[in-house]
Amino acid sequence: MTWRATALTLFPEMFPGTLGHSLAGRALREGRWSLDALQIRDFATDRHRTVDDTPCGGGAGLVMRPDVVDAACAAALAGEPEGEAPRPLVYLTPRGRLLDQALARELASGPGVVLVCGRYEGLDQRVIEARAMREVSVGDFVLSGGEPAALLLLDACVRLLPGVMGGADSAEEESFSDPRGALLEYPHYTRPAVWQGRAVPDVLLSGHHAAVAKWRREQAEAATRERRPDLWARHAARQHETQD
Amino acid sequence: MTWRATALTLFPEMFPGTLGHSLAGRALREGRWSLDALQIRDFATDRHRTVDDTPCGGGAGLVMRPDVVDAACAAALAGEPEGEAPRPLVYLTPRGRLLDQALARELASGPGVVLVCGRYEGLDQRVIEARAMREVSVGDFVLSGGEPAALLLLDACVRLLPGVMGGADSAEEESFSDPRGALLEYPHYTRPAVWQGRAVPDVLLSGHHAAVAKWRREQAEAATRERRPDLWARHAARQHETQD
Repeated sequence: MTWRATALTLFPEMFPGTLGHSLAGRALREGRWSLDALQIRDFATDRHRTVDDTPCGGGAGLVMRPDVVDAACAAALAGEPEGEAPRPLVYLTPRGRLLDQALARELASGPGVVLVCGRYEGLDQRVIEARAMREVSVGDFVLSGGEPAALLLLDACVRLLPGVMGGADSAEEESFSDPRGALLEYPHYTRPAVWQGRAVPDVLLSGHHAAVAKWRREQAEAATRERRPDLWARHAARQHETQD
Repeated sequence: MTWRATALTLFPEMFPGTLGHSLAGRALREGRWSLDALQIRDFATDRHRTVDDTPCGGGAGLVMRPDVVDAACAAALAGEPEGEAPRPLVYLTPRGRLLDQALARELASGPGVVLVCGRYEGLDQRVIEARAMREVSVGDFVLSGGEPAALLLLDACVRLLPGVMGGADSAEEESFSDPRGALLEYPHYTRPAVWQGRAVPDVLLSGHHAAVAKWRREQAEAATRERRPDLWARHAARQHETQD
């Protein structure tokens, strides 16, 4: 069964974007996944094709109307193949839970996803609730709209689909599956052995597998502690649980 | 002075991607910012144009060679306009600090940025150090490469440049500048007042500005507490400091 992605957007021309190239693009052309982009404006019912309106209670910006977005959702879900589970609706919003590898894996293992891209002021809350959308954020910053976030989420999912990566990156994937909690990766080195007076660490050229593994583990722990105290705290807590 | 972005990538055709459309695309055509994408492979020196090699110490995947990436960096920085500060080099990597609005603002207020897009196994550590690259992550998930992350970072920066948004979203920007620490946004509502039996909350139609502000504050606090305990803890800690 093909993994199916549909984006609901005011800018369908932004898709497939980065995903039309490289391995994701090849997999798209090979039919390992599919991508449609629906223009939300096509579901407006007045003659000006209005999709948004001023916020109730006042304030800057515009809010996308519940009826128009709901009609676009209905159209996206209307063509689901016989006997297949309905795809989840994911709304990209800074109000959502943070995207992580577990969510990418969960979505990749299902039938696909319908991604709702809003402008920043966002959707009317009622359509989010009526359609039981999952609200997902890609981080604590402001974007011009949901589209770059949708492409990011799709990239994380598509590379997990069978046959897309050819298993090349499976080792990296594992680092996010560690039951003790994720650590950042250790630093990488390749040829030349000395470059601009900078040498590859001796241990990596020693051929002692246990010593290499120990060094990499220490480097990963040090980087996590220094750069991402949030991940480090989670890691330490889970390690503690595991030892209990 | 034009804000200048350069991407170093194995897939220059992925740029400008989403940024060629909507307000960012218009600003690009109007010359409010510029974007170049350099093919890293053009800086390989052997006849096979090799950009990567196996990791020292063993393991899956390939690591990008320091000499090739360094040459691409040199080319990107060679054409800096007379008298202008050199642009920072940002390397998109899951080992980096998390992108946030403060970093987007800092980069947007400078001369521009050179974005280094690696494949996931990443760059040789020595070129990261030799070029003093800033390592930035967009979240705890695995991407096929740095390109979708680079477009996300650029989107967050470009919308902050003078004249790009026309000030329309300035209110939203403020929510990430709160010295007490960010809260998630409150929910939004617009017309119609009743849709599918769901009514806009009465307080938003009351015309009482103080009551609206109080309701929105409570909703923002409740959403943050429930969905993002990490942000809520930071908010509570800073509020405590402010009161001291």
